[in-house]
Amino acid sequence: MSRVEISAGKLRGLLRLADDEGRFRMMAIDQRGSLKRMIKKVTGRDVTYEDLAQIKKLIVKVLSPYSSATLIDPGYGYPIAAKYLPAEVGLLLAVEETGYLASGTGEKERKTRLLEGWGVEKVKRAGADGVKLLLYYRHDGSPEVVEHQQAIARTVGEECAYYDIPYVLEIVAYPFREDEDKDSFAYAKRKPKLVFDYVAEFAKPEYKVDVLKVEFPADLKYCKEYADGAFDGVKREPAYELTEVEDFCREVTRLAKVPWVILSAGVGIEEFLEEVEIASRCGASGFLCGRALWKYCVDFYPDLDAVEQWLETGGAENFRKLYAASEAAIPFWDTDVFKGFPNLMLQGAGPDWYKDYHGFGDR
Amino acid sequence: MSRVEISAGKLRGLLRLADDEGRFRMMAIDQRGSLKRMIKKVTGRDVTYEDLAQIKKLIVKVLSPYSSATLIDPGYGYPIAAKYLPAEVGLLLAVEETGYLASGTGEKERKTRLLEGWGVEKVKRAGADGVKLLLYYRHDGSPEVVEHQQAIARTVGEECAYYDIPYVLEIVAYPFREDEDKDSFAYAKRKPKLVFDYVAEFAKPEYKVDVLKVEFPADLKYCKEYADGAFDGVKREPAYELTEVEDFCREVTRLAKVPWVILSAGVGIEEFLEEVEIASRCGASGFLCGRALWKYCVDFYPDLDAVEQWLETGGAENFRKLYAASEAAIPFWDTDVFKGFPNLMLQGAGPDWYKDYHGFGDR
Repeated sequence: MSRVEISAGKLRGLLRLADDEGRFRMMAIDQRGSLKRMIKKVTGRDVTYEDLAQIKKLIVKVLSPYSSATLIDPGYGYPIAAKYLPAEVGLLLAVEETGYLASGTGEKERKTRLLEGWGVEKVKRAGADGVKLLLYYRHDGSPEVVEHQQAIARTVGEECAYYDIPYVLEIVAYPFREDEDKDSFAYAKRKPKLVFDYVAEFAKPEYKVDVLKVEFPADLKYCKEYADGAFDGVKREPAYELTEVEDFCREVTRLAKVPWVILSAGVGIEEFLEEVEIASRCGASGFLCGRALWKYCVDFYPDLDAVEQWLETGGAENFRKLYAASEAAIPFWDTDVFKGFPNLMLQGAGPDWYKDYHGFGDR
Repeated sequence: MSRVEISAGKLRGLLRLADDEGRFRMMAIDQRGSLKRMIKKVTGRDVTYEDLAQIKKLIVKVLSPYSSATLIDPGYGYPIAAKYLPAEVGLLLAVEETGYLASGTGEKERKTRLLEGWGVEKVKRAGADGVKLLLYYRHDGSPEVVEHQQAIARTVGEECAYYDIPYVLEIVAYPFREDEDKDSFAYAKRKPKLVFDYVAEFAKPEYKVDVLKVEFPADLKYCKEYADGAFDGVKREPAYELTEVEDFCREVTRLAKVPWVILSAGVGIEEFLEEVEIASRCGASGFLCGRALWKYCVDFYPDLDAVEQWLETGGAENFRKLYAASEAAIPFWDTDVFKGFPNLMLQGAGPDWYKDYHGFGDR
């Protein structure tokens, strides 16, 4: 079997994002717009920088120790949370601006923007272990929007290679056609293909992605075995059966080649646990879970003691369940690109490694 | 109390070099010349790249999981050991060429050289958590040598600030005068002042040092309480008493201001344990221990199984003793520069942190 070579920064970074077993058990607390809306709903007033910073600090302080890595935003999150993230937990920093630029068909398509005054270079200098880019994506969107999104993904990939730091690309499809509504049979039915299309696209070597963070390739609420209202009491017309959903996950694994993790996309924890369990036994390498993990703590805001108490009990319990659900996840070094730990090797290992390894200067 | 600000890369790096308690329990396996000589003594033949790489790999694999951070050289050590260093263990990479350039008075003085084709920039890109420079130093040396050594220390300090990565400066005095012999009453008597002089020099802010790695400021073999041959059976004329030695350590703490750790300089483990215990209760923040920890394993070379077995038993036992001996060490955030964890703060923390934090471009 031939050795698979990996550069020093990418190797160290991937090991740090994963746990000792090579599985990604990651937490996301890089929400900005969506967290603001959650806080506003509870407090009924305008949300300040302090509101966001306080909640993010507590979530990092209490829950990040359970994670193999934590994803934070550089605006509200990292400045305050920096010293509370344990050294043994990997640090992922986001590079995109929150939200999107409405574009294309009826202004219903989405263009990602990079956060101004920030970037891969600063993420690397700050000592993070990985870069995360959130990309809204519809392969069947307007060519102009599709090209824009692909170009951003490519640019960040090149920057990550240059700075030698892992690239976690998060991709999220969205409804934009006339007949599409997020909670609809039509969209649920279309979901697997939307995910396959973007995974196939961004698995191409030109994007230099190290870990794909993608949606569950189905809507479990429309899966026959759960369609009787298992998660929210609402009965729905089934769009597929569980065995088909498992095949969808296997197809993602086949297309991705690089390790992939699933994102929680705001679903409830019970639904996400099912998704993690199914994805893990069908080839995923873990999860990167945000709101499903901690969202209930916001209900207690601004009572910070109560927020903390919920995180220490309910939040921690969610994390324990997520570990159990992802037990069968594939260690990243066992995925198609790496083919096993014994195979893993530093690029150019040998007496001249340090001479050949390049710095930032020779782009 | 005023906040102490620290940059993102330095904060993350220091947290990673220390353990959860803020203490440095570090292992050094960056030996090149001295390890080569040890292997040659055992095998009686010329030492190859493979010899060094094999032993280093085993030491990293078995002992680094016990360390808060491991110091490795980029030539023989890191290329092979990279994937065996656990993600939760900090990575320190050395930047100097092994040995020194004989210079000055009777060619008995020492000039440090940086390893060609390597440097702080590459250390940062490779994903390490800190840079280590070994500096031979006599404050009373020839002006030309003294200036050369200070200039190198200053350059590396500037590079570390630029790349935002912790700077661990290791300083070692050496005998070079007519009346000096390493194992002599005269040199033992002179030792405290030699250490004070270099600590006072390199504690100056212009060197931008984050952690000082220094010698124990006395020769315990010449300390009254141990001078009856406690470590090697050789009786010696006492040069000082234990209470004085404790004062020497406190003086190092006072002069250093930044956290300091002691190095093992090839002494036996029993002697080093005493040194760590004394230094820890007098203000040191831990140790960076090399040969004292693992040197006996070399005796079994080239029987790799026996080497590994010794490391798993004797080596691990040494590490456990070192933890106990350093129980009173001062967490780095409680040293003079930081004044307590609550005080620690990201430089420029706030909504504009990510904009103000600079990348590598604007030197």
